[in-house]
Amino acid sequence: MTQLLKAKEGVITREMEIVAREEGKSPEEIRQKVALGEVVIPANVNHQNLQPKGIGAGLKVKVNANLGTSENRCFYEDELKKLKVAIKAGADAVMDLSTGGNLDEIRRAIIKESSVPVGTVPLYQAAAETLNKYGDISRLDPELLFDVIERQAVDGVDFMTVHVGVTREILKVLDRFPRVTEVVSRGGSLTIAWMEKNGRENPLYEQFDRLLAICRKYDVTISLGDGLRPGSIADATDQLQIMELMKLGELVKYAQNQGVQVMVEGPGHVPINQIEMNVKLMKRLCANAPFYVLGPLVTDIAPGYDHITAAIGGAWAAYFGADFLCCVTPAEHLGLPTVEDVEEGVIALKIAAHAADLARGNREAWNWDYDMSVARKELNWERQFELAINPERARKMRIERGSQDIKSCSMCGELCAMKIMNERGGKNA
Amino acid sequence: MTQLLKAKEGVITREMEIVAREEGKSPEEIRQKVALGEVVIPANVNHQNLQPKGIGAGLKVKVNANLGTSENRCFYEDELKKLKVAIKAGADAVMDLSTGGNLDEIRRAIIKESSVPVGTVPLYQAAAETLNKYGDISRLDPELLFDVIERQAVDGVDFMTVHVGVTREILKVLDRFPRVTEVVSRGGSLTIAWMEKNGRENPLYEQFDRLLAICRKYDVTISLGDGLRPGSIADATDQLQIMELMKLGELVKYAQNQGVQVMVEGPGHVPINQIEMNVKLMKRLCANAPFYVLGPLVTDIAPGYDHITAAIGGAWAAYFGADFLCCVTPAEHLGLPTVEDVEEGVIALKIAAHAADLARGNREAWNWDYDMSVARKELNWERQFELAINPERARKMRIERGSQDIKSCSMCGELCAMKIMNERGGKNA
Repeated sequence: MTQLLKAKEGVITREMEIVAREEGKSPEEIRQKVALGEVVIPANVNHQNLQPKGIGAGLKVKVNANLGTSENRCFYEDELKKLKVAIKAGADAVMDLSTGGNLDEIRRAIIKESSVPVGTVPLYQAAAETLNKYGDISRLDPELLFDVIERQAVDGVDFMTVHVGVTREILKVLDRFPRVTEVVSRGGSLTIAWMEKNGRENPLYEQFDRLLAICRKYDVTISLGDGLRPGSIADATDQLQIMELMKLGELVKYAQNQGVQVMVEGPGHVPINQIEMNVKLMKRLCANAPFYVLGPLVTDIAPGYDHITAAIGGAWAAYFGADFLCCVTPAEHLGLPTVEDVEEGVIALKIAAHAADLARGNREAWNWDYDMSVARKELNWERQFELAINPERARKMRIERGSQDIKSCSMCGELCAMKIMNERGGKNA
Repeated sequence: MTQLLKAKEGVITREMEIVAREEGKSPEEIRQKVALGEVVIPANVNHQNLQPKGIGAGLKVKVNANLGTSENRCFYEDELKKLKVAIKAGADAVMDLSTGGNLDEIRRAIIKESSVPVGTVPLYQAAAETLNKYGDISRLDPELLFDVIERQAVDGVDFMTVHVGVTREILKVLDRFPRVTEVVSRGGSLTIAWMEKNGRENPLYEQFDRLLAICRKYDVTISLGDGLRPGSIADATDQLQIMELMKLGELVKYAQNQGVQVMVEGPGHVPINQIEMNVKLMKRLCANAPFYVLGPLVTDIAPGYDHITAAIGGAWAAYFGADFLCCVTPAEHLGLPTVEDVEEGVIALKIAAHAADLARGNREAWNWDYDMSVARKELNWERQFELAINPERARKMRIERGSQDIKSCSMCGELCAMKIMNERGGKNA
């Protein structure tokens, strides 16, 4: 029984209660939103030690961190360090996107250590295993894919990205809409290459019921991947993206009717002026399902700084209604992120999520900023560190910039506005 | 003769021609905008080697970097290094905010080395010199302040922040509107403390004509400082801010009528949902004068990461019409920035400015992203580095993440979507 099925039956689960407490809402309100499909609680029945999180309309904006080895960089311990650092930095979920090494082993270790929901893209594992065996991705056997999905579900994976919307219908029109970066989704490109070489339909689409049956059994939330998301500003919000989005909207309803929790993934690379439209169109076409965005990056020209381009886009996407932001690290477009990259990415996107929570009127978010500003006014540095999004970083920077022995800081010294106003002793001091 | 006076007389100056070329506009269009006061070209007649820049409506968004010593950290060479790094990273202007050491000497060195417009806050120098002499800021002599202004104008300062809007009228109401962080502007707090202790009016307001006469003589652009800008999310867009803004609007018209170029400074700390309103209200109340914003920071809780909170706010402020973004470095709220901090701050805000240019439909900005995405699709790494906002950083990160010997990168390896699609050889490949 999934959270969705229970919610529809009027049952308030332990997970709904935890989410309600964390969000400052009533359990009944959470149940209603889960029943409507506007909120998901990714919580595989086999994921021990999970602290469930709610994702969706009206809740705090959540942040996901991507982990995982690759064929070229495969250090298990690093991935577990990334997990630890991500959770410490405030990640609300992680995805294990490993494609190098013993994938079952890595995934099990991550799930075992993770208190937050764990997601995967099963197609990556199926493709990596096929590549290892045959050196040719097009030899991927749909039975292997479903076997991987089942294996991962049994292990306790809480949500899975599945590129179900990349179908032969899309193949037919793909070359009719020229793009600068064509297809940039790994899952999307793999599916396209496979369909073309084998002359067959996307197995996840063809056997969608089989996928849903597995997800229903373990309560795996499906995240409908956007295999045709734009990978450049020039391609943003084009016909292919919207065509796939409309298909995903159909699939949302279908999956929910089968009792499976669903969220939908979105772009990608989007210029600032198209973000509001993207979020609102998605929410409209997908029955207000939770929206999971990758950034979006607001420009293509900043490799090395894509945590910043993603924070700019993510903050505003969330303000306009996106629910779940996928971290982008400074290493995006350049290589597999290091532990430090993951930390930078999570913090940048947590800032974005928090800025959106503030703008959406979340009381808890307001109180956090209020407390920080009171501490700032009082020049109470210990309290400022305590409230900082990264206390260690704030403390270290203050010391390194030579402020540790100064009542104010090394920027203004005696000319500190706080100090001057506090000495004046007005009503606000 | 200032650029404004010449523009009003129908004269197209060398500076207007340079700006026109840089912006891809006709010189006549630039002249018209300067004449209307919607664009300023800060270009002191005594600033040798200046590459003039236009700031204002319809032009590319510009970025300023703050430099300058403090009493606690005073290393001249560092400030010159910051200047170099800032210009290399793309800063369109710098401000010398020095308050420690020999201020005339530092300023002259910076102006001599700077190809971009240099701004100052003369009150800082007058206050620092008063503090050194008497240990008491309230003993600041208005004659000293005007002497400093003249000295700086003679030296070639291109724009000056003057907190003219902080008047006794404001003093009367200050304590009627409680704030969390009261006054966070150094210039604002100094002016308030001085007015109260001396029982006198703000000399810059009282003798505004004298200030304007100096500015007119050397063509110093005045930047009307927002001494009452909110310093916390809780204080954003409150009565005191708007009261001062209305006064600044009056002063804009007055200064322009005296032939002096004017821009107006804005917040500060602003939640995402108040940014559009802030920009539009400012533009309306200030006759569409160029708007120079500090960030704005979209949350208070991220010391150590305020280049990111500023990039989020700055990108959107610029999208809604702000013209000039002041960099905020990671050291903001913690201490005087290092050379590295300045570089990080400039790049973060350049990303924000560029993202806004893209969203505002700037053709040159679009071409940059387009070229980058073409290079990405081709897996042409040298070309990607060349086009990256920081080529050295991008190249270094790719090497350090172990991608240098791989055709794609160490994140996806053989599962690279670009590679898979290029091998497929569709029409878009």
